[in-house]
Amino acid sequence: MGDQYEVSETGAGALAIPSLRWEEPPEGPVLVLLDQTRLPAEEVELVCTDVPALVQAIRTLAVRGAPLLGIAGAYGVALAAARGFDVDEAAQALAQARPTAVNLGYGVRRAAGAYRAALAGGADAPAAALAEARAVHAEDIEASVGMAEHGLALLGELLPGGGHRILTHCNTGALVSGGEGTALAVALAAHRAGELRRLWVDETRPLLQGARLTAYEAARAGMAYTVLSDGAAGSLFAGGEVDAVLIGADRIAADGSVANKVGSYPLAVLARYHHVPFVVVAPTSTVDLETEEGADIEVEQRPGQEVTEFSLPCAQGTAAVAGGAISVAPLGAQAYNPAFDVTPPELVTAIVTEAGVVSPVTREALAEVCSTSRWRKSRSGNGMMAK
Amino acid sequence: MGDQYEVSETGAGALAIPSLRWEEPPEGPVLVLLDQTRLPAEEVELVCTDVPALVQAIRTLAVRGAPLLGIAGAYGVALAAARGFDVDEAAQALAQARPTAVNLGYGVRRAAGAYRAALAGGADAPAAALAEARAVHAEDIEASVGMAEHGLALLGELLPGGGHRILTHCNTGALVSGGEGTALAVALAAHRAGELRRLWVDETRPLLQGARLTAYEAARAGMAYTVLSDGAAGSLFAGGEVDAVLIGADRIAADGSVANKVGSYPLAVLARYHHVPFVVVAPTSTVDLETEEGADIEVEQRPGQEVTEFSLPCAQGTAAVAGGAISVAPLGAQAYNPAFDVTPPELVTAIVTEAGVVSPVTREALAEVCSTSRWRKSRSGNGMMAK
Repeated sequence: MGDQYEVSETGAGALAIPSLRWEEPPEGPVLVLLDQTRLPAEEVELVCTDVPALVQAIRTLAVRGAPLLGIAGAYGVALAAARGFDVDEAAQALAQARPTAVNLGYGVRRAAGAYRAALAGGADAPAAALAEARAVHAEDIEASVGMAEHGLALLGELLPGGGHRILTHCNTGALVSGGEGTALAVALAAHRAGELRRLWVDETRPLLQGARLTAYEAARAGMAYTVLSDGAAGSLFAGGEVDAVLIGADRIAADGSVANKVGSYPLAVLARYHHVPFVVVAPTSTVDLETEEGADIEVEQRPGQEVTEFSLPCAQGTAAVAGGAISVAPLGAQAYNPAFDVTPPELVTAIVTEAGVVSPVTREALAEVCSTSRWRKSRSGNGMMAK
Repeated sequence: MGDQYEVSETGAGALAIPSLRWEEPPEGPVLVLLDQTRLPAEEVELVCTDVPALVQAIRTLAVRGAPLLGIAGAYGVALAAARGFDVDEAAQALAQARPTAVNLGYGVRRAAGAYRAALAGGADAPAAALAEARAVHAEDIEASVGMAEHGLALLGELLPGGGHRILTHCNTGALVSGGEGTALAVALAAHRAGELRRLWVDETRPLLQGARLTAYEAARAGMAYTVLSDGAAGSLFAGGEVDAVLIGADRIAADGSVANKVGSYPLAVLARYHHVPFVVVAPTSTVDLETEEGADIEVEQRPGQEVTEFSLPCAQGTAAVAGGAISVAPLGAQAYNPAFDVTPPELVTAIVTEAGVVSPVTREALAEVCSTSRWRKSRSGNGMMAK
């Protein structure tokens, strides 16, 4: 794609590469993304100069994770506005790039709403869109801090003995956030407090976000971590090796049903069977009060090739492999590949948000904590939460 | 390894390549194995001329699956005897090649016992060992037929509506057996009876025996099958898409605890949570009455690299990839990689053997069905079942 080009990063301070940043070089504003499909083999940035490039990056998961998608969506609208493209069209394309993560639409609506409001009021509309994107970004950083604090306190209550052995799934750290993330931010807080004995990292098939991304972040943070096949989690539970499960969320319905990376629901069932707390960490922007219950959440179905083929990281000198993918199933094999699953509220011990902890998880308690979120409150007057 | 060489197969009748065969070319007897690490990309046979080569093939999973390991172990003893190697040493090396599958030791003990008895009686001991190996092989073929019949009848009872949607894990078909296998033999019987609507094939990380081998067998048998990531099984259960789980076993303890490929136990918990029958299919030779309960089963821990690296099938033109493996986790990442997990009897709806069905699964019922197995009976007099 002509409008999505790469910048290879080398040298020191690799941790300092943010998952996303807005830049304004002389050629015009751009959104720079850390290409998550290339990790952990190499740190490469993608520079998006227009919305189609960003949509492509979202679809290929170069940029991913619910909170970060919200930020990316907001900046995408700002990018279209700054470059003089049709903002409504851009907002629609961005919001539809992936169906399940509610944050994407949330970020898009916030920036597009600010743009339209400024336009109607005769103000600088592109500047308003950018300011709103920056606000979404800043709020996410702040939300990470809040979730980490609330989550750490909750772990202390649930597991008074300390020395937590935490199982997590997919990737929920700095790579999905303007800040330190959601579930992984809580684990990181426990690590800094000397309370984390072990982080069990589900590899998270088919795209291995756990093995590739969470392990990458855990290693850089100096956490004691161990990767495992998703199916081996059962053995850890059976052996009494898991004190709590911490996961993120891509959408939380009004009844507290949690859509998250496929493989989360089996962990919830295992956790219940073994009387282990199952804790979801997500900002209130991930709560979609317009979605009544779990069955109403649209689950993205992704290509079967993600399961039946192994895509090679580009940095491994494997140019000789045609197409960059190796079949691991017979030619023509079909695969069932939902990107997410839905965990019902009765299996969720607590939902940790930046505005507080919901436990037990009820429709009323969830609505209450959302109503106390100052961002949701501050936006509720201009229809931003409407779908 | 000098004593383990390859024969590439080409041309017609690929289904006709057996998973294992004894040959007696002019250079001396050999055991020929279909190399399961190369499937489904290519069908290559490994020719073992001595026991170290066979031990290597067992350890690398070129030959695998509980029943087939029993047959391979027995032929391994016969090979050592025929070639004039130390039979006791060979038997010990073979029995210790992998710790969990009880059939391996069972087959080794049968052939070694026949060898020793013949030696003591002044008979042709190598011929006796080979005859016993052939008997183990023939019994396994017959056991497959029995399991398929009993399993199909059980499915009819459990699911009177027909149109079964069966979820399976790992590989349990003709590749692991002298016959058509264990769990997959039942699914195949249902397919032939027009009763199989869908075979859901767990890919079975880390080594993908489901995606590589079960899908290969299902495709060749013309079954309607779909591959999925192990973690996606939860979504199938939640959606009411699974009528029964059928798996094999590597060792069944006297209390009915079932050691099987890692990832089986989470399926058992999911099946229980969703009130779906969880059925184990295994010959009585997999029941180890000397192992009192699940906690006594030694679970093989395999190298972490099986999780953190992706090994490339050799047939994909990937010689350019150094070492034939690609890291999917950061350098130095540790992995937890148990080969098996243990499902307690209270989660097992039924154990289907060649001698009948055990349901509900109790210590007494299991001992009873083993006592009616004519092979176990016929061997009980000469201490073959002693550990």
